[in-house]
Amino acid sequence: MTRPAKDDDRLVDVSGRKFHPAWLRYSCPCARCRHPESFQKTSDLSDRPELPVADRVELDSEANELRVDWREQPAHRSHYPLDWLLLHGPGQAGEQGAAGLDHTVHWDARTLRARGVRWHEAEACGTDGGPWFDDLRSVGFALLTGLTPQGLERLLTGLAPVFHTEYGRQADVKAVPGAEDLAETESALPAHTDYPYKVTGPLTQFCYYAENRATGGEFFLVDGFKALEDFRRDHPGWFDLLVSSPVEFEQVYTSWRYLYRVRRPVITLDGRGAIEAIHLGHSHAWAWDVAPELCGEFYRAYHGLVRHLGDERYRWAHRFADGECAVFRNNRILHGRNAFDPRTGVRHLITAYVPWQQLESRIRFHEERRFYFSPRERK
Amino acid sequence: MTRPAKDDDRLVDVSGRKFHPAWLRYSCPCARCRHPESFQKTSDLSDRPELPVADRVELDSEANELRVDWREQPAHRSHYPLDWLLLHGPGQAGEQGAAGLDHTVHWDARTLRARGVRWHEAEACGTDGGPWFDDLRSVGFALLTGLTPQGLERLLTGLAPVFHTEYGRQADVKAVPGAEDLAETESALPAHTDYPYKVTGPLTQFCYYAENRATGGEFFLVDGFKALEDFRRDHPGWFDLLVSSPVEFEQVYTSWRYLYRVRRPVITLDGRGAIEAIHLGHSHAWAWDVAPELCGEFYRAYHGLVRHLGDERYRWAHRFADGECAVFRNNRILHGRNAFDPRTGVRHLITAYVPWQQLESRIRFHEERRFYFSPRERK
Repeated sequence: MTRPAKDDDRLVDVSGRKFHPAWLRYSCPCARCRHPESFQKTSDLSDRPELPVADRVELDSEANELRVDWREQPAHRSHYPLDWLLLHGPGQAGEQGAAGLDHTVHWDARTLRARGVRWHEAEACGTDGGPWFDDLRSVGFALLTGLTPQGLERLLTGLAPVFHTEYGRQADVKAVPGAEDLAETESALPAHTDYPYKVTGPLTQFCYYAENRATGGEFFLVDGFKALEDFRRDHPGWFDLLVSSPVEFEQVYTSWRYLYRVRRPVITLDGRGAIEAIHLGHSHAWAWDVAPELCGEFYRAYHGLVRHLGDERYRWAHRFADGECAVFRNNRILHGRNAFDPRTGVRHLITAYVPWQQLESRIRFHEERRFYFSPRERK
Repeated sequence: MTRPAKDDDRLVDVSGRKFHPAWLRYSCPCARCRHPESFQKTSDLSDRPELPVADRVELDSEANELRVDWREQPAHRSHYPLDWLLLHGPGQAGEQGAAGLDHTVHWDARTLRARGVRWHEAEACGTDGGPWFDDLRSVGFALLTGLTPQGLERLLTGLAPVFHTEYGRQADVKAVPGAEDLAETESALPAHTDYPYKVTGPLTQFCYYAENRATGGEFFLVDGFKALEDFRRDHPGWFDLLVSSPVEFEQVYTSWRYLYRVRRPVITLDGRGAIEAIHLGHSHAWAWDVAPELCGEFYRAYHGLVRHLGDERYRWAHRFADGECAVFRNNRILHGRNAFDPRTGVRHLITAYVPWQQLESRIRFHEERRFYFSPRERK
């Protein structure tokens, strides 16, 4: 084992935050170290036997920059904007991550009613932020009205690349005979997340009612994070068992000759133990690897969670009219529908998915663009 | 805390393997419990207060099935193929997972030379398996020759859905002025994996040389798993430090207004401590969250790995001719190129990505289809 060396005698202090010289040297944003158009790192200092040494460090608050002259040949000077250092320095990772860009508001039926839901005119929704982005970052879903197929196309193009599925860029969901997916029947669908059997990053899901004339088929949303928080409080043992017991999510696509199978727990925690994601499609979930001695208790826990998520008190339900669209974060917000009667009228739902990372990266672009496109960065 | 109950007095024994009654009941593949076309679970027994009880268990080796009559109203009988039970029972998860479908052969330049590389006639490559799939499952890459743009399209369509990027379904990589990505310059690119800054499942990457007339620009592959194994053996402390120190992978796409940033370690281990993935694009990698007291040692480790991966002894290099294509698993196999001179001729590379899950699920479909489409399953 190599022991981590303690080099803290040479740390650089910026407003009380400590920076190691290696941190600074290898983060140098000058045009020789970072390609000025792609902003990718072009410096590779891996062949230098010694760690970098700062010969001269100058903190210039007026110019909002830290300047460092390095002991190397040819001479090298680095300029760091102070606000960039404070945003990106050690210990700030939480702020830079997906969660740091959110301002999460957990909800159940009661608190959401008190807060009220907002409907956004689809034509007013851009792809660089705005109120519907804010809703996605707080309550985890946004409601659009007056959406046309062309409007959906505009949003998807503006947030491309789109996550393609077997059905293509978007899917037409109607009741069809011989359905390969339960969504294509008229059955009720309990609260679930989509694609638990696919290995993807978090998805932003569009459920757009191009036409909805059939009787029944109310659509509903559930805040999985709120429901899981309550479940964790009331059933800590069950919660822990579900976190530590991966299940198999499976889907057979006969036409496409795919047998998807992904093994992961229904509930995923982040490094700090906070709820990071829920993956639950009961119709896809099998639990084949649970050890015999845990099986009984596992199913008590799993069925307890299924009942809990089905509780009306978590449900925001709405009968979507033509042109209405729900957009939601599939790793947090569950959705479902009541049964409908396809003989009473057309029910044409269009679904599409965009990685949440696209929206997050668009937000981040606007929040941090000053660090990349200011004249100082181009020196 | 709820304590897991011990219900093992009621376990069912199949060839020495133990099955809990709950496991069996909730895995029932009959047409009432599992939709006969979508194979999704339609039974929801979460409202039953008691765990299932088997009234009668019959192991019929001749008919290759286990039959169980359940104590419930209406009467319910389950039939389980014995080979299905043995394949899916507890403790078999490794066999069902991605790794279980592989027969991994780690390689370096010397052992690969001894083994020899195979070139596959593109027209003979199907999308339901075959020798090029076998190469992807063993050495992690496959080499195709005689590929046409139409041939590439056929393979992508056969393995759809394709992973789309900002460039669309596939990307034309040529040296262009004002490149937003270093790949679009004539520079050498050290061994790297693609898209470390995107949250995706493992990708299968196609690098297809539609035309290659420029001087230089040899393409090379490195088995990251083999290189990391050696690195782990020679530098266990550095290896552990890299596993436990997430870095920030970043990409700015000015035209698309995205600032991608993903925090994860360069090396990812699976639950058992085996190497699961390498993510390394040095040009995208920043290490902003490493604590000051670890920074010096972190950079020794990181630069040690960069040097290690650049070592010629890991490199399989080839000057790709028109119509030649490398297909490889991006979470294991690194790729790179030497610099080329765009004034000496056209160099037109086409890249495309398909989730490895597609190939894995295609393989699994053929290996397990008998469990879904046999007459017994439809009872």
